[in-house]
Amino acid sequence: MTGTTKDHEPATRDSRARASDAASVARYRRAVDYLAAAQIYLRANPLLEEPLRPEHIKKRLLGHWGTAPGINLVYSALNREILRTGANVLLVTGPGHGAAANMANMYLEGTITEFYPEMTRDRAGMERFLRAFSWPRGFPSHLSPAMPGVIHEGGELGYALSTAFGAAFDDPDLVVCCIVGDGEAETGPTAGSWNGNKFLNPGTDGAVLPVLHLNRWKIANPSISGTMTEEEIVSLYTGYGWEVLFVRASDRIEEDLDETVGAAFEKIRALQGRARGGEEMERPRWPLIVLETPKGWGCPREVDGEPVEGTFRSHQIPIPNPRENPAHLALLERWLRSYAPQELFDSEGRPQPDLLSQCPPPPLRIAMNRAANGGLRRVPLAVPPLDRHAVPVDPEARGSIRSSHMKALGAYLSDVIVDNEPRRNFRIVCPDELESNRLGDVLNVTSRQYVWPTPPGTEKTARDGRVLEILSEHMCQGWLQGYLLTGRHGLFPCYEAFLPIVDGMMNQYAKFLKAATETSWRAPVASLNYLLTSEAWRQDHNGFSHQGPGFINNLLTKKGKTYRIYLPPDANCLLSTMNHCLQTTNYINLVIAGKQPMHQWLTMDEAIEHCRVGASIWRWASSNDGEDPDIVLGCSGDNLTVE
Amino acid sequence: MTGTTKDHEPATRDSRARASDAASVARYRRAVDYLAAAQIYLRANPLLEEPLRPEHIKKRLLGHWGTAPGINLVYSALNREILRTGANVLLVTGPGHGAAANMANMYLEGTITEFYPEMTRDRAGMERFLRAFSWPRGFPSHLSPAMPGVIHEGGELGYALSTAFGAAFDDPDLVVCCIVGDGEAETGPTAGSWNGNKFLNPGTDGAVLPVLHLNRWKIANPSISGTMTEEEIVSLYTGYGWEVLFVRASDRIEEDLDETVGAAFEKIRALQGRARGGEEMERPRWPLIVLETPKGWGCPREVDGEPVEGTFRSHQIPIPNPRENPAHLALLERWLRSYAPQELFDSEGRPQPDLLSQCPPPPLRIAMNRAANGGLRRVPLAVPPLDRHAVPVDPEARGSIRSSHMKALGAYLSDVIVDNEPRRNFRIVCPDELESNRLGDVLNVTSRQYVWPTPPGTEKTARDGRVLEILSEHMCQGWLQGYLLTGRHGLFPCYEAFLPIVDGMMNQYAKFLKAATETSWRAPVASLNYLLTSEAWRQDHNGFSHQGPGFINNLLTKKGKTYRIYLPPDANCLLSTMNHCLQTTNYINLVIAGKQPMHQWLTMDEAIEHCRVGASIWRWASSNDGEDPDIVLGCSGDNLTVE
Repeated sequence: MTGTTKDHEPATRDSRARASDAASVARYRRAVDYLAAAQIYLRANPLLEEPLRPEHIKKRLLGHWGTAPGINLVYSALNREILRTGANVLLVTGPGHGAAANMANMYLEGTITEFYPEMTRDRAGMERFLRAFSWPRGFPSHLSPAMPGVIHEGGELGYALSTAFGAAFDDPDLVVCCIVGDGEAETGPTAGSWNGNKFLNPGTDGAVLPVLHLNRWKIANPSISGTMTEEEIVSLYTGYGWEVLFVRASDRIEEDLDETVGAAFEKIRALQGRARGGEEMERPRWPLIVLETPKGWGCPREVDGEPVEGTFRSHQIPIPNPRENPAHLALLERWLRSYAPQELFDSEGRPQPDLLSQCPPPPLRIAMNRAANGGLRRVPLAVPPLDRHAVPVDPEARGSIRSSHMKALGAYLSDVIVDNEPRRNFRIVCPDELESNRLGDVLNVTSRQYVWPTPPGTEKTARDGRVLEILSEHMCQGWLQGYLLTGRHGLFPCYEAFLPIVDGMMNQYAKFLKAATETSWRAPVASLNYLLTSEAWRQDHNGFSHQGPGFINNLLTKKGKTYRIYLPPDANCLLSTMNHCLQTTNYINLVIAGKQPMHQWLTMDEAIEHCRVGASIWRWASSNDGEDPDIVLGCSGDNLTVE
Repeated sequence: MTGTTKDHEPATRDSRARASDAASVARYRRAVDYLAAAQIYLRANPLLEEPLRPEHIKKRLLGHWGTAPGINLVYSALNREILRTGANVLLVTGPGHGAAANMANMYLEGTITEFYPEMTRDRAGMERFLRAFSWPRGFPSHLSPAMPGVIHEGGELGYALSTAFGAAFDDPDLVVCCIVGDGEAETGPTAGSWNGNKFLNPGTDGAVLPVLHLNRWKIANPSISGTMTEEEIVSLYTGYGWEVLFVRASDRIEEDLDETVGAAFEKIRALQGRARGGEEMERPRWPLIVLETPKGWGCPREVDGEPVEGTFRSHQIPIPNPRENPAHLALLERWLRSYAPQELFDSEGRPQPDLLSQCPPPPLRIAMNRAANGGLRRVPLAVPPLDRHAVPVDPEARGSIRSSHMKALGAYLSDVIVDNEPRRNFRIVCPDELESNRLGDVLNVTSRQYVWPTPPGTEKTARDGRVLEILSEHMCQGWLQGYLLTGRHGLFPCYEAFLPIVDGMMNQYAKFLKAATETSWRAPVASLNYLLTSEAWRQDHNGFSHQGPGFINNLLTKKGKTYRIYLPPDANCLLSTMNHCLQTTNYINLVIAGKQPMHQWLTMDEAIEHCRVGASIWRWASSNDGEDPDIVLGCSGDNLTVE
């Protein structure tokens, strides 16, 4: 075991006021576990005031119980940390399948009622709330943009942690807690995400507090983490540079988790305090919590003679058929009554006051963190005047100049960086291709951000900078999604052939955008801007593997309102296009342009007009002397629009 | 530091005959480094018999020098291990950009001449060989199927290690060495691949020997691994379950690497020997070599006053402009002459005998390993008679039965597994969805293979089995590619929505297949069979994130000769389709079929005919009594074909 890893961190509770007594903590947990199970099962009799009958049970049982009790433990421990210290906390829930747990907390604390007033905190409202779960006109069974506090849906696993890092950049007060399921932990993108700690600046960025939820099972198999020894887990994450804090299931789990969460926040504040006091820390070692609990903790140990609690059988619906199987119904009733809802809610279905005392006031609630509805705090990007970077084109000699579109864009982006530096709200993410894609000029005005010490000879890299380069398209995409959804702006330049690596992520993001724009209270976020370059046609030197123009095809299949595609034909058109894209919201913008020197055709004014109308007709005509051909520009006008 | 990790492994040289003396080893290294550099630079004067002049230099300089010296070190150390022990070695080169190095070894040992007879090992042949590198009618600058020994191209980074595991399954005598660049190591898919060790059975599978080549730099940045301490690297990979062996640049690098490679092979044989002797080992700890060398080792330290050797500037072309810049030309000449080619090749350009003594005889050469041209050893899969699994359909009452297509397929696949068990040449890879996709019946005749101890309650899992389940589509795809390209068969069932996670990998595999089928000496390999189920239309319960029918669109953009798409309308058609697909070669087959109970329409004979012709016309007609409608099947016949 390495010296830097501590198992049970010594408590420092005396430094913090306890928000509530142990009994209320336990009762809160019973309440949210009950509400999570009830969302999966009940369509009526929400407080179990009557004996449970088949007609109280939903006709189709959907949802994932297995991860829910763990989410509830984390959610409530974060709440208590907020109550103790006023911490500014955002939660990214990797196991988004466990939405019933998040929803239970949001309902109990009152957030759901604020967004969905019909779901009042009383008997009738609770019934509406329970029925709405996993119902076409209600909520999905997974986290979704229709739910407050959500910046990550979690259906396609692997991206929670990179999204959390994206949310933390440039938000120095924020702590992004990220629950990583041990299933998700075996995806490649998650495995690569742990390295985000080396990019996060404790002086100027927020923090990411991962909670690896080790419940040892996936749908039908043990998780890989579930077969590792504690020593291996500590070794692995220590190797990634984290300080591993273990919390294990016990009768005092809430207290242990409180202590560990409290210790983690203190470590975070200590690292940030040192950095903000001017210390140039080497290798800041952020805390990571490993929370080990039985899967589906709290549900029946056995159903039909098969073990359920603590096994893969609790992954979804622990008791499969209570509507038709009386034994299942009786078992379900016993399980649900084990939470004693009548002790938690009053005769009208209102939560008892001591439960409410466990919930932070609205401005501090996790689900109402403004970062999760990032459009609310989005400040439009300042964009430089286009004339400043126009490539000079002589209308008498169009095409006579050859220059790289990317070089021109690099100069323009440098101004974007400088002009927006005070707000620290623009970032370029790139898989180690910024210079290869000829955008290196931006590194004259900023740096690649990398916090850990780099070898001698490293250039244009600093602990603080607007550029994040990592050889991982997955990380670039996840970071940018988290950054945009929390109200900032960004650009993702990439080799064309390798953007299909994130086809799946883009699919999910397009769906997130679609659902978000259909959610009335979601404010528009800055568009996700892809800059595709090093196109297939110019990759002969890199060979077949570097040729693949397919990303555009995939984007073309998305909902029309979620994307725009641009193919600017010269540098001035590229500048005008990027100028436009950086100011749009709620789109995925795909801009495709080459990096090799190419003919330049349009003056800046013509380019702006060409881009405004969306297309124009160019005619190759002989000039007066019959020798030098020229291009005649004819914009077709009002019947074409850019969008 | 954990106790299981040793730094410099004690040498056990006396147990192995040294293949050659240190001088020849050093001369071999000079020769392959020279040939790698010469491929990048020279179009004439291959032996430097004349002073170097601009016209000897290629007009366009392409290739990646940075990784080449490291590949040469590994390649030659493996050769010496083969000479010492007769080991059966396949090499997967993650940094495929460094193809010039692989090619240098293959040319020197004579493999290139065997496949491309005009590239003789003399002055004229060498010139042809050097010119062919990165030339439209020659070889790409990256590894490609046109090169012997290649099962992984390496242009899109992240998949070398999973491909290596795929090659090792069920080939107990094989050691697959996999060079992982430290750039590639930061991709998500590579980070997730290290867990493959928990699936590899030392009794029945071959071994994977990863060599993490730590040269600390990518294109323009330090690698993340390059900023980690040795303690962190050891901790990380020990946590993943490997035994880490470090080898560092020094004057005795060849000797150190020989000792470490030898020790690694001995450890591998020891683990295998214990398992094959009947011991049920817990957590077999396979060796992993970390090879730390300066990037571009051997090229000029400085060019134009900038440091090059040991920095990112050696990534591609260390001396950029020798054709036009006399100082660059002089520097290049000094560099190339530092290898003293006249001492390595005779006056006719033939390699000196002591160099050839470093090369294994043809059957043992890495590049001529039959696993790398897997079609040569492919045994067609035995498929069960379709009648055995036919879903009974009454032509008088079509559609009256509803059943799950997947259930029927599960029974069929069970027979495939049983019938081919003696040959151990069929595997199902799946991201923890086999049972969810209702193919669980196969687990009645085989198991999920997982070698490390699993928690109590684990079911249908054993140290040996035909199913590999991991929550990672990347791993499933990489494992299957490696398995197929080495001559075996397989199936990849997946939720439709999540197969776009491997869009990028599929793109690259389709290109590999295209290039492979254009390479005359490549024997056909079994098709890569995707089974897409849990389609968008039946994922309402799982929500929007689980809906995404886009994989078919992506596949439709590939070269027509590389893929086939099937949409069988009922269970019998699905069985007939799968029966066909499992017998085809060199395709990517995409079979899309639901898992929910659906109407059954065709008898097995009709289904076979429907699938043979590719499409048929179904007419909904009133039956004789005017009450029960019926389907009239009309196959349109010879003008339609299945393929």
